[in-house]
Amino acid sequence: TRGDEVLFSGEQCCPPDVVVFPHCVEEVSALAKVCHNHHLPIIPFGTGTGLEGGVGALKGGVCFSLRNMDQVLDLHQEDFDVTVEPGVTRKALNAYLRETGLWFPVDPGADASLCGMAATSASGTNAVRYGTMRENVLNLEVVLADGTIIHTAGKGRRPRKTSAGYNLTNLFVGSEGTLGIITKSTLRLYGIPEAMVSAVCSFPSVQAAVDSTVQVLQAGVPIARIEFLDEVMIDACNRFSSLSYPVTPTLFLEFHGSERSVEEQVNLTEDITQSNGGSDFQWARDAETRNSLWKARHDAWYAALALRPGCKAYSTDVCVPLSRLPQIIVETKEDLMENRLTGPIAGHVGDGNFHCLMVVDPSDPEEQHRVHLFTERLARRALAMDGTCTGEHGVGLGKRALLCEEVGHTAINVMQGLKDALDPKNLMNPGKVLQPREP
Amino acid sequence: TRGDEVLFSGEQCCPPDVVVFPHCVEEVSALAKVCHNHHLPIIPFGTGTGLEGGVGALKGGVCFSLRNMDQVLDLHQEDFDVTVEPGVTRKALNAYLRETGLWFPVDPGADASLCGMAATSASGTNAVRYGTMRENVLNLEVVLADGTIIHTAGKGRRPRKTSAGYNLTNLFVGSEGTLGIITKSTLRLYGIPEAMVSAVCSFPSVQAAVDSTVQVLQAGVPIARIEFLDEVMIDACNRFSSLSYPVTPTLFLEFHGSERSVEEQVNLTEDITQSNGGSDFQWARDAETRNSLWKARHDAWYAALALRPGCKAYSTDVCVPLSRLPQIIVETKEDLMENRLTGPIAGHVGDGNFHCLMVVDPSDPEEQHRVHLFTERLARRALAMDGTCTGEHGVGLGKRALLCEEVGHTAINVMQGLKDALDPKNLMNPGKVLQPREP
Repeated sequence: TRGDEVLFSGEQCCPPDVVVFPHCVEEVSALAKVCHNHHLPIIPFGTGTGLEGGVGALKGGVCFSLRNMDQVLDLHQEDFDVTVEPGVTRKALNAYLRETGLWFPVDPGADASLCGMAATSASGTNAVRYGTMRENVLNLEVVLADGTIIHTAGKGRRPRKTSAGYNLTNLFVGSEGTLGIITKSTLRLYGIPEAMVSAVCSFPSVQAAVDSTVQVLQAGVPIARIEFLDEVMIDACNRFSSLSYPVTPTLFLEFHGSERSVEEQVNLTEDITQSNGGSDFQWARDAETRNSLWKARHDAWYAALALRPGCKAYSTDVCVPLSRLPQIIVETKEDLMENRLTGPIAGHVGDGNFHCLMVVDPSDPEEQHRVHLFTERLARRALAMDGTCTGEHGVGLGKRALLCEEVGHTAINVMQGLKDALDPKNLMNPGKVLQPREP
Repeated sequence: TRGDEVLFSGEQCCPPDVVVFPHCVEEVSALAKVCHNHHLPIIPFGTGTGLEGGVGALKGGVCFSLRNMDQVLDLHQEDFDVTVEPGVTRKALNAYLRETGLWFPVDPGADASLCGMAATSASGTNAVRYGTMRENVLNLEVVLADGTIIHTAGKGRRPRKTSAGYNLTNLFVGSEGTLGIITKSTLRLYGIPEAMVSAVCSFPSVQAAVDSTVQVLQAGVPIARIEFLDEVMIDACNRFSSLSYPVTPTLFLEFHGSERSVEEQVNLTEDITQSNGGSDFQWARDAETRNSLWKARHDAWYAALALRPGCKAYSTDVCVPLSRLPQIIVETKEDLMENRLTGPIAGHVGDGNFHCLMVVDPSDPEEQHRVHLFTERLARRALAMDGTCTGEHGVGLGKRALLCEEVGHTAINVMQGLKDALDPKNLMNPGKVLQPREP
């Protein structure tokens, strides 16, 4: 995990009283019943790679580490679906699928567990083409707070679409362990494209890079990845990953499809980037070069940390409608400068989602305070532009108050009503997502 | 509406005591409060084009006809989103968008209201490419049973993705009016493709047509529509729409993309269909010919009715994993033959979803009973193949018992808990989706 380098935005991470390592859903259910009978908090734990403090045991209790449930079950190649236990990570699944011609594209960077990714509604670099966990989970097995086992779409069911009753699957996707423990996920798979090509393009300004992104999407290019890095971020990546890209706002791009389709996508995209003053594409065609490019992108977190050795990091995570991206990024960079903060920007700009990787001296409370005020201003800037305070990291601890501002008290009351209906004793990951009520 | 020709599978449609025609959300909220205070059932009404009896007033009460709230609001062309009131139908929205180069692709056939489509989780012919309402609703304004107004993603918010709190949007999508009244929907829009080409292909057998479908999807062709019609259905369409297609299992296909991409998709698809014994494609390239082709497909309902004048129709709606389609369609056709039933088959086979359009003599109770037993066998056949009893029509009245079989009693209890949390007096469209509890 990268827990050691993470600075949580909310309270400090608290250890649980006990950690249990169940081997099967029946054990999870039996343990949950014990907790339920004794009023013990239950904290589900996958890989601990979440960024919003979701696995902290604020009230003590029992951490359910699910790493021993690590089987890939029921691969249906011809139907493009598979079921996994919670100990299976996305890289483990893709390694398992290697010979099949299929893959699971949702890619949050960290090698997270797939059931944890379902619990936190993860997404990442491929979401612009393949969607987030919301669009890619077909069914979940969930253990409720009282030990009851449910299958959100019915046991073993895996139709590609359904209108049968309330959408329980997408109620548990993104519930951050506060409604139940996910013990199996049935996932959509995709065929590995015939051709995959990556490219890097440098721009004279943030506006030019983001304008290109918007125009590529408006032109209907089915781009697989379109990632923005500001000049601070690309400089950090150059140093950390021994690269030599120009130190200006940059897009990392990837195209998937048939050979001809990819060629057409590339030509159209290059026309657009060049019309915005972008550089010629620097290509990554073979798998090795592509992997090193995306490794550099995924190592952005460590590259940012390396800018200030001994510091910790916290990643902001706002998401706005595409047309608002240039303004919010420009204003945010001004805010960083004015407040003397280190916060390289990287983002899934095809979705309107971007992160400032805030690098903070853990021994400097004044700086931490400035970061805190900055992140609140950034979230409110996104809210003022019809956006959200979290595109993919979730609410966890630090964004509970912002969630109230975002959805309003009537929607918060509905969320609280759902929580009370499913977990009346407030045992499931207590204190996350929703703020404790006034006593 | 096509209500006059519909034979509901459950109880007969019952009229409400009163119909109200609110003009704005404040009026909806005020009227809901009156109903709440007087324990009056609330039945939301869009266009009445649903197929599972969702607008019947089983316990009397107040029908909220939303047709006077018919404004298109807040079109954001550059962000590919729009907000509509509940009186706006999908055809009205697409007419409104005509000059913009954008469209809304979800197409259930009938000219349904978009908020009603959200309420019933509608899909249709384009879902294989563009998804269902689940993937295309960004935000909803909802009036709850007690008159409270909520915005599922926060007022005015429209990021393309979010992880902020529980996914209320997709709890209300598909809730069939049983959790609240949808008074606004914010929808994703798409660019109208540069090229659109339709084709018709005839096959020697059901197996050959469905095998082709599976192989086209496995090959990664981003096909926009792939619709199956069995020989009974194509014969009925030929007669009703004055066409002359061969009377054999048939696929109606549509390809969207750039000129070159469409050409490549067509070539790859034709290779696949020909290797399965399919005919040469019959083309529909210009808009007029394409429209007449899809009008014939959308008129399948009336074409089926015309097979037996004076009869009524009921459409089944199962959905199974792709690989199970050939078996279930072949077994279902045998079942129809053995039981002397008229049920031409049409389906969105790219999703594994198909319908038997059961044409039934309303004066023949014995035939109605045979149809009832047939539809139950068909649903259970789908359930036995890991599928669902409803891919897109919803549960309404007739599938409440099947829903229990599909998801199991523990998941039904969760659904009932959600219903109780949001509508404790059971006023919202009572008797739909969930069965009344034992007294």
